[in-house]
Amino acid sequence: MTEKPTRADASALDRTDPLAHLREAFELPENVLYLDGNSLGPLPRAAREALRHAVEIEWGTDLIKSWTKHGWMTLPQQIGGRIARLIGAAAHEVVAADSTSINLFKLATAALKLRSDRRVVLTETGNFPTDLYVLQGIAAFSGGRAELRAVPSDTIEQALDDKVALLVLTQTHYKSGAVHDMQRLTRLAHDRGALVLWDLSHSAGVLDVDLRGCNADLAIGCGYKYLNGGPGAPAFLFVAERHQAALQSPLAGWMGHAAPFEFGDDYAPAPGIDRFLCGTPPVLSMQGLGASLSLFDGITPRLLQDKARALGQIFLDRVEQAGDGSLSLLSPRDPSVRGGHVSFAHEDGYAIVQALIARGVIGDFRAPDALRFGFGPTFLRYVDAWDAAEALLDVVATRSYDDARFRARAAVT
Amino acid sequence: MTEKPTRADASALDRTDPLAHLREAFELPENVLYLDGNSLGPLPRAAREALRHAVEIEWGTDLIKSWTKHGWMTLPQQIGGRIARLIGAAAHEVVAADSTSINLFKLATAALKLRSDRRVVLTETGNFPTDLYVLQGIAAFSGGRAELRAVPSDTIEQALDDKVALLVLTQTHYKSGAVHDMQRLTRLAHDRGALVLWDLSHSAGVLDVDLRGCNADLAIGCGYKYLNGGPGAPAFLFVAERHQAALQSPLAGWMGHAAPFEFGDDYAPAPGIDRFLCGTPPVLSMQGLGASLSLFDGITPRLLQDKARALGQIFLDRVEQAGDGSLSLLSPRDPSVRGGHVSFAHEDGYAIVQALIARGVIGDFRAPDALRFGFGPTFLRYVDAWDAAEALLDVVATRSYDDARFRARAAVT
Repeated sequence: MTEKPTRADASALDRTDPLAHLREAFELPENVLYLDGNSLGPLPRAAREALRHAVEIEWGTDLIKSWTKHGWMTLPQQIGGRIARLIGAAAHEVVAADSTSINLFKLATAALKLRSDRRVVLTETGNFPTDLYVLQGIAAFSGGRAELRAVPSDTIEQALDDKVALLVLTQTHYKSGAVHDMQRLTRLAHDRGALVLWDLSHSAGVLDVDLRGCNADLAIGCGYKYLNGGPGAPAFLFVAERHQAALQSPLAGWMGHAAPFEFGDDYAPAPGIDRFLCGTPPVLSMQGLGASLSLFDGITPRLLQDKARALGQIFLDRVEQAGDGSLSLLSPRDPSVRGGHVSFAHEDGYAIVQALIARGVIGDFRAPDALRFGFGPTFLRYVDAWDAAEALLDVVATRSYDDARFRARAAVT
Repeated sequence: MTEKPTRADASALDRTDPLAHLREAFELPENVLYLDGNSLGPLPRAAREALRHAVEIEWGTDLIKSWTKHGWMTLPQQIGGRIARLIGAAAHEVVAADSTSINLFKLATAALKLRSDRRVVLTETGNFPTDLYVLQGIAAFSGGRAELRAVPSDTIEQALDDKVALLVLTQTHYKSGAVHDMQRLTRLAHDRGALVLWDLSHSAGVLDVDLRGCNADLAIGCGYKYLNGGPGAPAFLFVAERHQAALQSPLAGWMGHAAPFEFGDDYAPAPGIDRFLCGTPPVLSMQGLGASLSLFDGITPRLLQDKARALGQIFLDRVEQAGDGSLSLLSPRDPSVRGGHVSFAHEDGYAIVQALIARGVIGDFRAPDALRFGFGPTFLRYVDAWDAAEALLDVVATRSYDDARFRARAAVT
């Protein structure tokens, strides 16, 4: 790159991008720059086909036989195995199931039972809200056996005392994109006798996560962000092999039974990761997720991470270098500690995001003032990052957002 | 009907069947008699179209905007309202969410917290296994604050003592099809100071359930059986209006928050039924369920019940009258206390079911010896019930099931 980067520099990067071919695997709407793949990944063509097959052939024609004929019974493990490769886990350590919130409930409750000599769950204030809510719910229903301690991010280390049973952190912050040092924090927690549960919702499919390399205990994550699994796609959970026999799920359902087809009266947890399954999974949504994951075959997480961070950097640098200073960066400037998205704060953030959407540049807004732009490395081009920055700069410079139709609030996600 | 019924009698019933037109609303495979709609309902054409739209237009084109544009955000309540009509509830008392197992966990745990002066959950032995497992899980994680008491069905009344916080029963037994008297048992439990939770998995969409008329407290049920919502479709839950403000969900996720888009750190349960939502729902599976429910528009549950029981009676009578006595009836002979399915026991039950499947007559097997046949009133004809009986009689009479390929066990559901 030259000292003053140009769109031509971004275009040059596209020509040598080893992931460029993946864009063709998606159905992308016309005239849209989609910078919200961190909230809902776009539709892979393979998912569209798999879902058509799941509806018409599996459900419509083969009906109940599909549980075996089309492998419905083992979808949680098949899909878990595909996700495992992206997060540095072994295939038998991951299953797809339920929602991220419910998987957090399962694993945090299980960890508290295992470590009943301690009662504190430690997390950070400002963590992804549903994570805080789930942990508050666990504490509220524990009858005093569990307590949630939420502290600012920079005081986690001091708060990790000998009362902490479990540290729960989201690796990539949903608002700022800041990434915790998983290796260091996991080691620190272990040194102090605590287990760690990582929420990988904004990491899986975009960062080079290495759970085994970090000696991680537990993790959860989302299927519909960078994994492109479709709206509300099932989530996943990871339990390190060494913990699987000792941990028990509080959600004891038939899919987690050692012998689900014996229809016995007594629960006996399946050996291994399967015990963390509960009820019948939403098969159609599972098939969408499974097919979407095929996109990652042969792709290393490192390539995804490198491209996502480079995309974000082009955007961030251009906005900072060519802007009027009214947008303040919420994300780390250093890409090595940043996830796949970049956020700026602006007091008119909501209206700016709406004005961008009206131009086909789709990011999202997070209260109270964050504009968030996700850089999905599977379907975005480097020129997209450049063009998105130009659009943002223009909306801000021209104040085209200052319009009643952009200021009117509606629920968005 | 004449004294000795014939196929012509069944055919005559089809000609005057007020639900006959519904069959055309389904995609049914050729040359199949599908008697397993109580395990997985067949594909409604409306669901196929809704799923195509959800994948290609909502996910593929409108992407994140679909949360508002296509009403994703309110799917749990929209679908809940449609189910409410079928189970005698008000629209604001029902939401679609998660799985039956998880909904049971939520409501049973909430009820135990509300009634913390009592500690026993009463249920029947041989209840649907996942219900027993979930309740065992609750007891195991309660730290002694909850105890599960499972008693034979005919001793429930005696076991309802002043220690019982909650009675959990499945209205229609998954194996026998026997139906509990919801009105009487609910009143009895209330007289003894207990709450009642009804599992309607084998009732909703086939029986004339009247939750309000029974003064019911809580209920759960399945979306993929008689509601035809698709494989693993989301389940539903009912909380009577009078309990909604006092009950709290142990699964406190963002969808159950009073203000989910404020992204605050503290959980505040939504007023009303919404507090029993947890994480992001599987939207594609939800859209399939929602569209399938449109079939029931204008249909009364009483019509469904009458037809399902009449279908079962034709089948049951013919098998008993023309059989060799080797099949023993597991279901009530009296249709007024029977659900939508009819079961027989036979020591070679597994092989008989496989032999029938090979002929295109699809029922299912439930260990150790039950052959189960479901009579979905929305898509079956009276002649189908007759023909299914003939097929069963023929397989048994000719012993065509006595073949290694039918005896080999594979996991089925």
